[in-house]
Amino acid sequence: MRRVLQVGVGPLGRMIVEALHRSGVGVVAGAIDPDPAIRGKRLSDLVHDHGAIDPVVVGSIDELALDEGFHAAIVSTSSSLAACAPTFRQLLGFGTAIVSTCEELLFPWLRHRDLAAELDALARETGGRLLGTGVNPGFLMDTLPVVASAVCTDVRGAVIERVQDATTRRVPFQKKIGAGLTPQEFAKRCADGSLRHVGLGESLHFVAHYLGVRIDAWTESIEPVIAGAELECGLGQILPGQAAGVQQIARGMLNGRDIIRLEFVAAIGQPDPHDRIRIDADPPIDLVLRGGVHGDLATTNIVINSLPCIIDAPPGLHTMATVRPVRAISATTPLPGSRLAHHILS
Amino acid sequence: MRRVLQVGVGPLGRMIVEALHRSGVGVVAGAIDPDPAIRGKRLSDLVHDHGAIDPVVVGSIDELALDEGFHAAIVSTSSSLAACAPTFRQLLGFGTAIVSTCEELLFPWLRHRDLAAELDALARETGGRLLGTGVNPGFLMDTLPVVASAVCTDVRGAVIERVQDATTRRVPFQKKIGAGLTPQEFAKRCADGSLRHVGLGESLHFVAHYLGVRIDAWTESIEPVIAGAELECGLGQILPGQAAGVQQIARGMLNGRDIIRLEFVAAIGQPDPHDRIRIDADPPIDLVLRGGVHGDLATTNIVINSLPCIIDAPPGLHTMATVRPVRAISATTPLPGSRLAHHILS
Repeated sequence: MRRVLQVGVGPLGRMIVEALHRSGVGVVAGAIDPDPAIRGKRLSDLVHDHGAIDPVVVGSIDELALDEGFHAAIVSTSSSLAACAPTFRQLLGFGTAIVSTCEELLFPWLRHRDLAAELDALARETGGRLLGTGVNPGFLMDTLPVVASAVCTDVRGAVIERVQDATTRRVPFQKKIGAGLTPQEFAKRCADGSLRHVGLGESLHFVAHYLGVRIDAWTESIEPVIAGAELECGLGQILPGQAAGVQQIARGMLNGRDIIRLEFVAAIGQPDPHDRIRIDADPPIDLVLRGGVHGDLATTNIVINSLPCIIDAPPGLHTMATVRPVRAISATTPLPGSRLAHHILS
Repeated sequence: MRRVLQVGVGPLGRMIVEALHRSGVGVVAGAIDPDPAIRGKRLSDLVHDHGAIDPVVVGSIDELALDEGFHAAIVSTSSSLAACAPTFRQLLGFGTAIVSTCEELLFPWLRHRDLAAELDALARETGGRLLGTGVNPGFLMDTLPVVASAVCTDVRGAVIERVQDATTRRVPFQKKIGAGLTPQEFAKRCADGSLRHVGLGESLHFVAHYLGVRIDAWTESIEPVIAGAELECGLGQILPGQAAGVQQIARGMLNGRDIIRLEFVAAIGQPDPHDRIRIDADPPIDLVLRGGVHGDLATTNIVINSLPCIIDAPPGLHTMATVRPVRAISATTPLPGSRLAHHILS
């Protein structure tokens, strides 16, 4: 049973902990959260399925009981790589294998080239490993398009869309996409940066880099999806003219021409939810995930499914294109060749 | 420029050589084929795009000019692992990185457990690496389903179909699927083993193994698709009542119940060609490749795209689930971390 250190026990961290324990893949043997409302509590105070160890949440790595060590750490604290960097540095210092939901870590070279180089060098020195993943960014709009290109040559471009009906998603997600806001409120929240899907630019550059498609400029736009009729959801009623959700588009261009286009739509009552990947190549690819993929479940699953891949990877800063393919794992999955002896802090 | 050794310069080998040279990824610096009709010829006698070196095809590895060595070898000689084994042994003995279209190599533990263990041990000893790939087996009905499960937990089963319209495929492929045969001829060709898609069982066991789904029995069936009307194709005219192609089904069962089902259909005039992967898991996956994927192009591409992945892999016998994700590459693709210094026979 893998002993896992969970850093960040907010809403996402708790979902990850419960999914890890349900899966039987590992047990949370240590938990960290600096939030005064959380630290000092037992995991069992915070989640339904707390596992056999039920550690007390401590405020920092320095407060951990270190007698048994960990096989890997999961960091789900922030979308910002700069905000996560002190945690990554400290864990990598112990040679830890880390999976993180930090969106900017999917392709850190976009916004943090120097920090990426520093973390990579540190990991190679200590034997640590670091991977950013998630469902989006992390899979549907970046890893899956790259994997789908395995049968292609002469890739010229790609159009990738993720269209979600947010009606059945959690209320925090519905708030996050601006459902129920007036167009003015929506614009204000976009302007102050509090309303946006983080990671679309990272996905765009991941795709461009790993498909070997050159772009010399990129843009990102964000607009509300306006409700045309009354809508009902967990958040309450949405009136015609209010925002039902968000449409966000990232474009990668070469000489002013669109080469890669990523379109993310998430709205209450959105018809025809799906994911679609079209690659302009020989042969062309037109891949559709019918009905789309439920984001909450998918995020926690891919984090847990990534654990053996990063544990087995050579030291360094990794991406979803450099670790071996992530796949569904379970407590009984045979993992030939898996080396699970990587402990931090023996 | 990667120097590649091509073993097998029959129809598929020639397609691979031309695709490699078109891609700019590598150059065939040595070629082997024991066929007396081929050996002794220059590559330029056999293919349109013969590359800068244009080697003479020799009959065996012992006849190669060894002054510069090779970064990798491509072996496209036989579907049978037993038939390929002497070649693999000899090349692995030099520590070579090998990609092969040998269908049984996709998951060699199904039919050749001891041989697989022997080749793995040899490769680990010499620093060699060995990978079986292709479009099918190799990607559409095995690797892609496993990769698509990255966002899943609790995988309970899978249904995978590949439906191809063979009208525009090469005549040898049309012959291979039995187009134009009477039902009696078709049955005879099935009985003597000369008419079947090789690798469906390997794909089935690849999927079961890497999704961690237990099966305790499996079957494979093969039936003709009977033409209901007159059909035209490269092979000529097909009359109603004759075979238009093949339908092959592999079923993996547990306690008598179907857990995994693979259905392969390839026929002249087949409507709605597509690939579809359904995974019964949380969340469920329903992935469709609209229009399918053209098999000839895809096979040569995935072989070439696999080269950097096997070159970078640790020594041993690999599968498409243990090397880093294969993706479209090109002469200009940046390959960070790629170590290209593996030569055989320096």
